[in-house]
Amino acid sequence: MTANKIAVAVLGATGAVGVRFVQLLSQHPLFHLAALTASDRSEGKRYAEAAHWVVEGEMPREVRELPLLPTDPEAVRRFAPEVRAVFSALPNESAAQAEPAFAQAGMLVFSNASHHRMMPDVPLLIPEVNADHLALLHHQRRARGWSGGIICNTNCTVSGPAMALRPLYDAFGIRRVFCVSLQAISGAGYPGVPALDITDNVLPFIKNEEEKLEAEARKLLGRLENGVVREADFGLSAHCNRVPVADGHLVTMSVETAQPVTPEEAAQLMRTFCRPELAGLPTAPEQPIIVREEADRPQPRRDRLSGAPVGGMSVVVGRVRREPLFGERGLKFVTLAHNTIRGAAGGSMLNAELAWRAGLIS
Amino acid sequence: MTANKIAVAVLGATGAVGVRFVQLLSQHPLFHLAALTASDRSEGKRYAEAAHWVVEGEMPREVRELPLLPTDPEAVRRFAPEVRAVFSALPNESAAQAEPAFAQAGMLVFSNASHHRMMPDVPLLIPEVNADHLALLHHQRRARGWSGGIICNTNCTVSGPAMALRPLYDAFGIRRVFCVSLQAISGAGYPGVPALDITDNVLPFIKNEEEKLEAEARKLLGRLENGVVREADFGLSAHCNRVPVADGHLVTMSVETAQPVTPEEAAQLMRTFCRPELAGLPTAPEQPIIVREEADRPQPRRDRLSGAPVGGMSVVVGRVRREPLFGERGLKFVTLAHNTIRGAAGGSMLNAELAWRAGLIS
Amino acid sequence: MTANKIAVAVLGATGAVGVRFVQLLSQHPLFHLAALTASDRSEGKRYAEAAHWVVEGEMPREVRELPLLPTDPEAVRRFAPEVRAVFSALPNESAAQAEPAFAQAGMLVFSNASHHRMMPDVPLLIPEVNADHLALLHHQRRARGWSGGIICNTNCTVSGPAMALRPLYDAFGIRRVFCVSLQAISGAGYPGVPALDITDNVLPFIKNEEEKLEAEARKLLGRLENGVVREADFGLSAHCNRVPVADGHLVTMSVETAQPVTPEEAAQLMRTFCRPELAGLPTAPEQPIIVREEADRPQPRRDRLSGAPVGGMSVVVGRVRREPLFGERGLKFVTLAHNTIRGAAGGSMLNAELAWRAGLIS
Amino acid sequence: MTANKIAVAVLGATGAVGVRFVQLLSQHPLFHLAALTASDRSEGKRYAEAAHWVVEGEMPREVRELPLLPTDPEAVRRFAPEVRAVFSALPNESAAQAEPAFAQAGMLVFSNASHHRMMPDVPLLIPEVNADHLALLHHQRRARGWSGGIICNTNCTVSGPAMALRPLYDAFGIRRVFCVSLQAISGAGYPGVPALDITDNVLPFIKNEEEKLEAEARKLLGRLENGVVREADFGLSAHCNRVPVADGHLVTMSVETAQPVTPEEAAQLMRTFCRPELAGLPTAPEQPIIVREEADRPQPRRDRLSGAPVGGMSVVVGRVRREPLFGERGLKFVTLAHNTIRGAAGGSMLNAELAWRAGLIS
Repeated sequence: MTANKIAVAVLGATGAVGVRFVQLLSQHPLFHLAALTASDRSEGKRYAEAAHWVVEGEMPREVRELPLLPTDPEAVRRFAPEVRAVFSALPNESAAQAEPAFAQAGMLVFSNASHHRMMPDVPLLIPEVNADHLALLHHQRRARGWSGGIICNTNCTVSGPAMALRPLYDAFGIRRVFCVSLQAISGAGYPGVPALDITDNVLPFIKNEEEKLEAEARKLLGRLENGVVREADFGLSAHCNRVPVADGHLVTMSVETAQPVTPEEAAQLMRTFCRPELAGLPTAPEQPIIVREEADRPQPRRDRLSGAPVGGMSVVVGRVRREPLFGERGLKFVTLAHNTIRGAAGGSMLNAELAWRAGLIS
Repeated sequence: MTANKIAVAVLGATGAVGVRFVQLLSQHPLFHLAALTASDRSEGKRYAEAAHWVVEGEMPREVRELPLLPTDPEAVRRFAPEVRAVFSALPNESAAQAEPAFAQAGMLVFSNASHHRMMPDVPLLIPEVNADHLALLHHQRRARGWSGGIICNTNCTVSGPAMALRPLYDAFGIRRVFCVSLQAISGAGYPGVPALDITDNVLPFIKNEEEKLEAEARKLLGRLENGVVREADFGLSAHCNRVPVADGHLVTMSVETAQPVTPEEAAQLMRTFCRPELAGLPTAPEQPIIVREEADRPQPRRDRLSGAPVGGMSVVVGRVRREPLFGERGLKFVTLAHNTIRGAAGGSMLNAELAWRAGLIS
Repeated sequence: MTANKIAVAVLGATGAVGVRFVQLLSQHPLFHLAALTASDRSEGKRYAEAAHWVVEGEMPREVRELPLLPTDPEAVRRFAPEVRAVFSALPNESAAQAEPAFAQAGMLVFSNASHHRMMPDVPLLIPEVNADHLALLHHQRRARGWSGGIICNTNCTVSGPAMALRPLYDAFGIRRVFCVSLQAISGAGYPGVPALDITDNVLPFIKNEEEKLEAEARKLLGRLENGVVREADFGLSAHCNRVPVADGHLVTMSVETAQPVTPEEAAQLMRTFCRPELAGLPTAPEQPIIVREEADRPQPRRDRLSGAPVGGMSVVVGRVRREPLFGERGLKFVTLAHNTIRGAAGGSMLNAELAWRAGLIS
Repeated sequence: MTANKIAVAVLGATGAVGVRFVQLLSQHPLFHLAALTASDRSEGKRYAEAAHWVVEGEMPREVRELPLLPTDPEAVRRFAPEVRAVFSALPNESAAQAEPAFAQAGMLVFSNASHHRMMPDVPLLIPEVNADHLALLHHQRRARGWSGGIICNTNCTVSGPAMALRPLYDAFGIRRVFCVSLQAISGAGYPGVPALDITDNVLPFIKNEEEKLEAEARKLLGRLENGVVREADFGLSAHCNRVPVADGHLVTMSVETAQPVTPEEAAQLMRTFCRPELAGLPTAPEQPIIVREEADRPQPRRDRLSGAPVGGMSVVVGRVRREPLFGERGLKFVTLAHNTIRGAAGGSMLNAELAWRAGLIS
């Protein structure tokens, strides 16, 4: 029955993140997918004609015939007046224009684009990391005169590190973090990375990625005070690589904490990290961080779909050990997060579920 | 004409490094390949029957019919009495027994195995980095009563970092180095990594590799004083990953120097790094370190065969920039070295050419 | 509740097919996994220590602590006296000895090994293709004096072609079939194909594979008459290639039928192919053959897990079109089958379910 | 010295085939690269800025600063009045317009585009296969009133099969050919195939490729009679696949000859196939067809650069055996050709050298 579900739309539904949104919304217990938009090129086509269904499994039957609307609140309202929230998989340039228009029109926008992420009045949200930042929405609405609003998920690469750092930061403080990423090709969208660039190869550079990782980590772990996020006060330095893997971003981390800590304490803290306030949300993982004991895990192909009830929503951490160069305040480990689930569409879905529980969508 | 060349043998000639030795010795201007040995399983076969020719190009005609001898100095002497030096591609366990036997029998052993590398009287050698360590050979011969001797090349992963650090260490000193490697599958030999483990995957662990990288870097950059290598006094922390790339080890590096340095100074120093005393040796690269300016280089497939006259002997460095977490003493960059050429067979070849110039093989 | 289930064992449980058996038996509604055997090297270890868990997802909790028994009916009986059937993932040499011993000891052996496949009294079975061949078991028991018996699944490559040919053969007859396979690396087991052999490469040869494909196809489609399988009377010529894909064997086919046929008729016949007598068996696919309309499907990564209720049990066919060189009796298409599910462990599972329905296991 | 060389230009010099032309022209003994053109987007930039240098090795120093001209004969003439011939790596749509303009302006166009290939008065040329078709140029000039002309190379996939079929066709006649290709990603140009489409995957369809392979093979092997090419009278059926390999197209072939033939005769005929009239041309391979004896060769990564003096110009054939379905007139084998060298830029280069020897460029 879709009657009691909240109607939602997906903006930019034909690309790599868009199809993941569509997939996660199929049979979602709270949300009902009522409308799809696309760029000018695809407008008017049926979804089955225009979508790049680059995810596993078949396209759900119920969306195949949906028409692709222009990315415009009027068009969505006309087609499906009951839509209350939208998931935005728009490219950055379109997001800059379209997302405020939807917010203005009274809808909550759960965005995967980077354009609004670092704006002071926009919640940049990973529910397990900083659910309280959702309160920024009130300031945003007041300041901008919107009845809807924009809530951003994070860059796909920062989700693993931010989740792993949260319990460590709270318990021991953090001074410095060195991150090196080995990122999957789906992180670049579709068509994204040309096969000729990545076959039998590594690209040791991803445009703007290191900057995003550094900035977003500090905002995510920052403290909300009087309607302002005070960025977390640690330094983070990232080197981002693209590797020939379909899905799943690995990040190796060397962390200097403020207080002494043993690898065993850190592993235990991550393993038991949980957020009771998220319990029962359809996309919330039972265990946000899975800590593996084997010497050679996590691995992208074998561990990227970890977590339940939605595979790919848990972050997997492994090789937790001493970072010798930071002595008794040093930790070294590796994180894995599914970049198009945890780090993109699944992350936004959980943001929307959190907003629903907070009474912001009804 | 092979008449005036020095006769050499390859020990363990059928595996991944062995075939690379054979390839590099074909048409070598100084050395003539006179004998090949193999493990028990292959003894007595012709080379063409037993070798895993996993390198590019055809097997040289002149070696196809060579018989595989037991790995034993007597057998080699009987077959080719003129052999003066051997290149060892033996696995570690065999190297422990066989290499001393050849040294005892008066031959110089240029070894690719790790067994003897960290022994105090064994030169661990990258000619551009520490050619003077060759002097250890005299101590070794005296101590062990050998007329031959053992000279080791390094772990394949350390060659890039050690080369890049040499000029920086000499000019500015080094305090700490964080390394994360993205290593090619050929580094594990043949058969080595099962395809099922690495297809669409990364392995975030390589057994014993991080320890070797850390220890060997300090020995390589150490100072020879009174017949003893004093290890370089910096800390190095490594995290080693295997990625789905055939050849070429990438290493991302965050370096804390002792003195302030700008990225421009560092790049210039690496670019102009050269060793006149190696000039003209057949395998010595004209430019030991090639510094790339492009944002996205070096890349394994496109840059691993860099260098002339022997492709794959230059180390390629890119993305030289400030490491923000170390302020004005911080450098960040990435190195690429061909692991079976620069980091294995080619490295040993250059060691042998250095020894030849030093009058140790004649 | 395992109380009412039939106890089974897996022979050779630690390899690529063995772990797939274990995975499929976890939560199987009819069978309960009661014992595991392994080769000498692993005997006595716990399963979690010795298994190469190279399939997606976690190892089921209930098998982690199971001890690895010797591959011997006495050992299995002693550990789990209630075992009635065994799934054999043994390598061929072991299968030759061990499978008859288990059959002699009264157990039904569902074998994935090739050793017994072509023996006249051994059913070589794909339930959708030749369920009636199960009757050979009676002859086998009588001839060999066994109370148990051996039932073989097929070579992993033949499963797609045999399934696709079944309805065509019955309706139009078949004269000649040209097959070219593009096979996944998991087809070679674990460790199987060295990554150095298949990275950025194709291997245009797989030992003994073409012979098996040719012989097994004729036996599978043959007719059982008076206890003897009369091989199907068409010619089949195969060229087998290994490609850098983890799972899923593609086979391109050019078929000459005996009667005229249009591609549309052929596609419709395959699409509607079904076996009511298998309905409700836990591993039987709702639709044995899925025919795709898109020009560029099936593709291994995107389609290999097709089918329900067990993903990977349906064969996917695409590009059904005229083979111009055979005129109005010519068909051309491509098949995809998951080689370790449909073509190995899942196939044997369905064989066992068929035997259970036939009252042969109780 | 470039003084005595023939000045040439490359049209569409920034893409995958364009850079290969530039690479092959660097240090070419007959031709001197004097001008480069590109599409509107790149016009006016320096070559080093705009080229996608996706081939191995460095961009030659002498071309880095060359300006990118519009693809227009006037612009080329103005910049380099001495240009006599051009190599066209233009996409099809541009080729349709631009190539005739250059031919009209008196230049010989050696085209890699498919647009003109099947036109009756355009030579579709592989020098070893049908050098005599060059005579079509006279008819073309007369019919079109051109002082220059257009000479096409073939589709990259047909080069291996056409070369292998030539000696067989001449000696035994050919009735039917079944081809299945396993094609490399560079065959689709740059950016070409998205990595998300081909990682851990095969695409069983390449648009228009099968039709081209079928038509071009018959024209290539056809006979020139009275200024008209009579197509060869065999049937050819192709199924084309894309596989995750960087370079090198494999094609498996089942051939029905007109006369009986043994695999040994066929192999010997291919091995000894040679064209004395091409001897000494800089890009002509010493041995056009290399026949391998090993069971598992040719392989793309290991054999694609076969041939001398220009690696990648020989076709490598392997697994020559009986095709059982065609009895004593049946042959089965596999061919490998480097798709961007033999099948594209290198093929055009050899066409130009042939034209030069024929006195058509001076």
